[in-house]
Amino acid sequence: MKIAVIGATGTIGKAVVKELSARHEPISIGKTRGQYHVDITSSESIRALFTELGKVDAIVSTTGNLHFGPLAEMTAEQFRIGLHDKLLGQIDVALIGQHYLSDGGSITLTSGIVSDEPILGGVNATTVNAALEGFVRAAAVELPRSIRINVVNPSVVQESLEVYGPFFRGFEAVPASRVALAYSRSVEGPQTGRVYRVW
Amino acid sequence: MKIAVIGATGTIGKAVVKELSARHEPISIGKTRGQYHVDITSSESIRALFTELGKVDAIVSTTGNLHFGPLAEMTAEQFRIGLHDKLLGQIDVALIGQHYLSDGGSITLTSGIVSDEPILGGVNATTVNAALEGFVRAAAVELPRSIRINVVNPSVVQESLEVYGPFFRGFEAVPASRVALAYSRSVEGPQTGRVYRVW
Repeated sequence: MKIAVIGATGTIGKAVVKELSARHEPISIGKTRGQYHVDITSSESIRALFTELGKVDAIVSTTGNLHFGPLAEMTAEQFRIGLHDKLLGQIDVALIGQHYLSDGGSITLTSGIVSDEPILGGVNATTVNAALEGFVRAAAVELPRSIRINVVNPSVVQESLEVYGPFFRGFEAVPASRVALAYSRSVEGPQTGRVYRVW
Repeated sequence: MKIAVIGATGTIGKAVVKELSARHEPISIGKTRGQYHVDITSSESIRALFTELGKVDAIVSTTGNLHFGPLAEMTAEQFRIGLHDKLLGQIDVALIGQHYLSDGGSITLTSGIVSDEPILGGVNATTVNAALEGFVRAAAVELPRSIRINVVNPSVVQESLEVYGPFFRGFEAVPASRVALAYSRSVEGPQTGRVYRVW
């Protein structure tokens, strides 16, 4: 399978590329690194990417920015960061990418454990991750040509613990290689509309 | 209690005002009708409203626009409608309103059944409603001074069946008066971080 991996140069993306490489042809796509580049906050940039790639068998997105900060000081402007980037960015990859998928192809997006388990300063993250899970639930019933869509919801990744550890006290960290298996289940399995939790 | 009801002139809002009027002082707020006016897509407008109202004991929001249409044709631009209006609009009411609430006050937002039960053409609605439920889950753990936050998730309302019926075949419609009870539970009860489903 020809698989577009957007966010391929990140911690999870790298593990996904490694996992899929054994059996498929993942294409590494990053914002500034990787074989191809895309800015997911721009429909034009996403359209240009898929025009360049042509037909693909699967699309994986492991990327997107959020705003972290105390609720008491949060503004709509700050809240928009996650809505425009991790949320609408990934959704737009699906909206545009659906037209470049071969029959039976799949889309796999990325949410995160704070969707279900809030952390202090994480309202934007919980909102965005929950929204992505909603999007997948609804898109799954509407996609044609046996195209599937799922989302992977990972816990904090072991490789990122040095940076994110203080926000996730008591959470069980998971190795990126284990998170990558969920993307493989989504891409190579039969299900649609699923949230694959890796906790 | 002095209760700001935003969306008070809509089908659900009217029922909420009626239910709360028996024991409290609900203030009717609409976009163009009601005692006070607010445009929830503008932080400035929301701030002006609360400055005018002063301290309140509860905030209820029963408003917000969404985009409905087939996934196959949906654009990021269309998707932004729900994100900026029903989602960020209600969130901004909470972000700004939190500072105008008395100790032990509450915020009650509105999602909808398509959060859990997708309909054709409803990806924007499912995404936005799921996001609102995520927001409430996260905000509940962070709000100070015993301020609570919940969301009411109603099925299609009987009073709106003539318009929305075709999108909700097989769904059990509920009278607005029954939906209004959930807002009363949220405002007058002890819980926080809850999704009150009225199905």
